[in-house]
Amino acid sequence: MDKHQNKAKFLAVFPELVTELKEVCVNYGITPDAIEWLEKNLNYNTPGGKLNRGLSVIDTYAILKNYKSLEDFSDAEYKKLAVLGWGVELLQAYFLVADDMMDKSITRRGQPCWYKLESVQDIAVNDAFMLEGAIYVFLKKYYRNEPYYVDLLDLFHEVTFQTELGQLLDLITAPEDHVDLSKFSLKKHSFIVTFKTAYYSFYLPVALAMFAAGINSEKDLKQARDVLIPLGEYFQIQDDYLDCFGKPEDIGKIGTDIQDNKCSWVVNTALNICTPEQRKLLDENYGRKDAKKEAICKKLFTELKIDQLYLEYEENIVNELNGKIAKVDESTGFKGKVLTAFLNKIHKRSK
Amino acid sequence: MDKHQNKAKFLAVFPELVTELKEVCVNYGITPDAIEWLEKNLNYNTPGGKLNRGLSVIDTYAILKNYKSLEDFSDAEYKKLAVLGWGVELLQAYFLVADDMMDKSITRRGQPCWYKLESVQDIAVNDAFMLEGAIYVFLKKYYRNEPYYVDLLDLFHEVTFQTELGQLLDLITAPEDHVDLSKFSLKKHSFIVTFKTAYYSFYLPVALAMFAAGINSEKDLKQARDVLIPLGEYFQIQDDYLDCFGKPEDIGKIGTDIQDNKCSWVVNTALNICTPEQRKLLDENYGRKDAKKEAICKKLFTELKIDQLYLEYEENIVNELNGKIAKVDESTGFKGKVLTAFLNKIHKRSK
Repeated sequence: MDKHQNKAKFLAVFPELVTELKEVCVNYGITPDAIEWLEKNLNYNTPGGKLNRGLSVIDTYAILKNYKSLEDFSDAEYKKLAVLGWGVELLQAYFLVADDMMDKSITRRGQPCWYKLESVQDIAVNDAFMLEGAIYVFLKKYYRNEPYYVDLLDLFHEVTFQTELGQLLDLITAPEDHVDLSKFSLKKHSFIVTFKTAYYSFYLPVALAMFAAGINSEKDLKQARDVLIPLGEYFQIQDDYLDCFGKPEDIGKIGTDIQDNKCSWVVNTALNICTPEQRKLLDENYGRKDAKKEAICKKLFTELKIDQLYLEYEENIVNELNGKIAKVDESTGFKGKVLTAFLNKIHKRSK
Repeated sequence: MDKHQNKAKFLAVFPELVTELKEVCVNYGITPDAIEWLEKNLNYNTPGGKLNRGLSVIDTYAILKNYKSLEDFSDAEYKKLAVLGWGVELLQAYFLVADDMMDKSITRRGQPCWYKLESVQDIAVNDAFMLEGAIYVFLKKYYRNEPYYVDLLDLFHEVTFQTELGQLLDLITAPEDHVDLSKFSLKKHSFIVTFKTAYYSFYLPVALAMFAAGINSEKDLKQARDVLIPLGEYFQIQDDYLDCFGKPEDIGKIGTDIQDNKCSWVVNTALNICTPEQRKLLDENYGRKDAKKEAICKKLFTELKIDQLYLEYEENIVNELNGKIAKVDESTGFKGKVLTAFLNKIHKRSK
């Protein structure tokens, strides 16, 4: 399916959902100023990203249904799928509005963070709540009569809680203003990226598409999860690697993980193999807003050949995941191709 | 039923729930530092209030079931009810942690607000999310197999969204740092108090108890809502009245609504009846952190006899609600006594 066409069609659904949510609010009798605010909140924070998570709900469903193009969807069928996709994007918006406040970020997706707007500030906390709340308004409207409605609710709840747990561990392990590398470990890194990223970015979209396609035995959900969770971890480890070793012209940004005291795969791997002298160097230079100290860390990571270790990790994980995908049991409807599609997108990215 | 005994029994359930949530987290494999943080978050923010909302789930259920004392509950039955009660208290904790951040409050329930703790600060946003997330962990554990499980989820979702809408309108109508009385109106006041307070404080506990007692036709839920929503509005109007006209020794606090630019029933009623000169006085003196300006407003409210208007409002609303309660159709299991219990508690409070 054509990527740009997919995105355009998916994006075209969002204004419809905004209109529908406004109607709900009008029926409640709320005044126009609050409705206008809610509309601005939705439009500012939800559709501006790459939309990979939302689109992968549609893509996964198409693979499961053997659809070859967008024309294979009926209009009502596409809309219902798009509601799930926008549910994932609204969940992400909820997390990002809050994360930006907690990280004191300045910009997001090329515009000021929502909470940085003069008129918004701390109201952003309630606005984040409303982005999450909108998910359940749409799920109820489009899925209340489906036998798997309750499964969709349980899934969103569990993944939301898991993401919050990952965010909590990240916040207390790597606060931006207090460096303590003794709190870091590869085990914590694995937990943080699995819970903070992998569940909602990889497992959630696929599981939603599976429910919608009627392929939702616990056995099939587990087959998806067993690949998608380590795949999500691989994606984040790749992200950590690129932040340090990627060329800005390739990755489209300048890495800031070292200065931001991030509990990254790179520093955790270094901590695992460094000498006491090198550890001292890291203790004194990691996580400081200082380009010279950042350069000292980067030089050490290169000396420790972290980039080489990453390539070894990548080769192993890709082989392992391909092995798992080859063994997928397709007898109850699930398809290994769903997982191959994800793996190929990520594996290509680093090359 | 004895009030102190009720509260003690209800409170005794909370540590069990904390232990159960910690077990969920241990099973996820999260590290002890994060589990300890979550435990502190739960204990600091949930059980320290009056617990009226949580207790009214138990009280309402007892009335519906004709129970005369706590001994009429089986242990498992009480625990399940208490889970719903603590669900309401967790929802309130979620709102209060966030409200305190948005209002820049200093203390709550006699201790510093959670976000004011040196170690917490903005992490409070994620902690608020987790308080909400905990509700759905407990509902799933205790209610997943009940036919009305999905109704409980829908109810929590809808009431949460309604409360957030009320909070939004309150935040944009009455920001603490910018006075604009032209944004105020009795209509907005009614919407704010209904959505921000009445749904979650009055309707939610009763509706939860009704589902648990098997009395959950839309007709019966509507009978409850038709009294509880105006009753919740009356409760908040009474609160606004007491903030201005109550004696500190009676209400246990010193009112701050005038200085805080609150969109209170008192100022809205005054705006409705004041002369242009009096309006000018309000424009210049309301919502300022200045005891003299506050005294000018208070004097004006007394001249306008707002206290007298309150007593008239109260007489009317109590009569109206008693009339509605008298007409409650009890043929499908609902009982007017549930509503009388609420009304009596509130009506007595002002005397």
